[in-house]
Amino acid sequence: VVTNIPPAYDGESLRSEDHGLLARPVPAFLSTVNPSGTPQQTVMWYRFEEGNFLFITRTDRAKYRNFLRNPRASVMVVDPDSIYRWIIAAGTLSVDEREPESFYRSLAARYLSGKRLEAWQTVANFDLLTVMRLVPDRIITRYKSTFD
Amino acid sequence: VVTNIPPAYDGESLRSEDHGLLARPVPAFLSTVNPSGTPQQTVMWYRFEEGNFLFITRTDRAKYRNFLRNPRASVMVVDPDSIYRWIIAAGTLSVDEREPESFYRSLAARYLSGKRLEAWQTVANFDLLTVMRLVPDRIITRYKSTFD
Repeated sequence: VVTNIPPAYDGESLRSEDHGLLARPVPAFLSTVNPSGTPQQTVMWYRFEEGNFLFITRTDRAKYRNFLRNPRASVMVVDPDSIYRWIIAAGTLSVDEREPESFYRSLAARYLSGKRLEAWQTVANFDLLTVMRLVPDRIITRYKSTFD
Repeated sequence: VVTNIPPAYDGESLRSEDHGLLARPVPAFLSTVNPSGTPQQTVMWYRFEEGNFLFITRTDRAKYRNFLRNPRASVMVVDPDSIYRWIIAAGTLSVDEREPESFYRSLAARYLSGKRLEAWQTVANFDLLTVMRLVPDRIITRYKSTFD
């Protein structure tokens, strides 16, 4: 996809024009690195807050164990209306000390509504949760293709 | 997103029910590992062929340099109609010896049509291209959420 298009924005921080996409309830694709050196990918709910990405995870999950070994991670958000509009943010993960259950509930309310939110509330499990924060230090964005 | 849902399929190979999503012209999210240990992510056109994922890249791109150092990679395909339907395939990258230009043209025809394909043909650059193959050895899939 990107083989022939000119350089996208490549810098240290997100720009104001990125905030619109990041405010939408789209998924984030989070990548960490497994002990074997193989990338590990997951689809995540997230909240963008003051330049950082916030996630919820269980502490018995591969991504959390990977973070303990190597806190470097990358997150990608792709516009559901065009695969040629995306934001990639690489940075360092840390534990955010806020209360996980209320954060998880607020994330669910960001992504779900009505009967789906009600159904989530009946199946949600709040064991072993922690909030993770990704502080980006390199941002690459693209907002159009060369052929549109 | 995945914190509370039961284990997805986790096995060594793709299943026949995965072929429908993989045949659609949706993007693949490819992750490799940078020399620094930070994951590197890109949005890619791909073709699924006999259980493998085929991509095009320039040999001066980060993902190609990463492959030369560490051929382990992971690719994720998410259903554009539901973020709770996805396929993640981790495996090993190699160079595929087929002719890159004709492969690139066939990829463009898989993803574009009409005026967009014509516009791509006027801007496409065929320098330094190579075809990459990802042979998966671990597949994780999910086809529904617990709350739908």
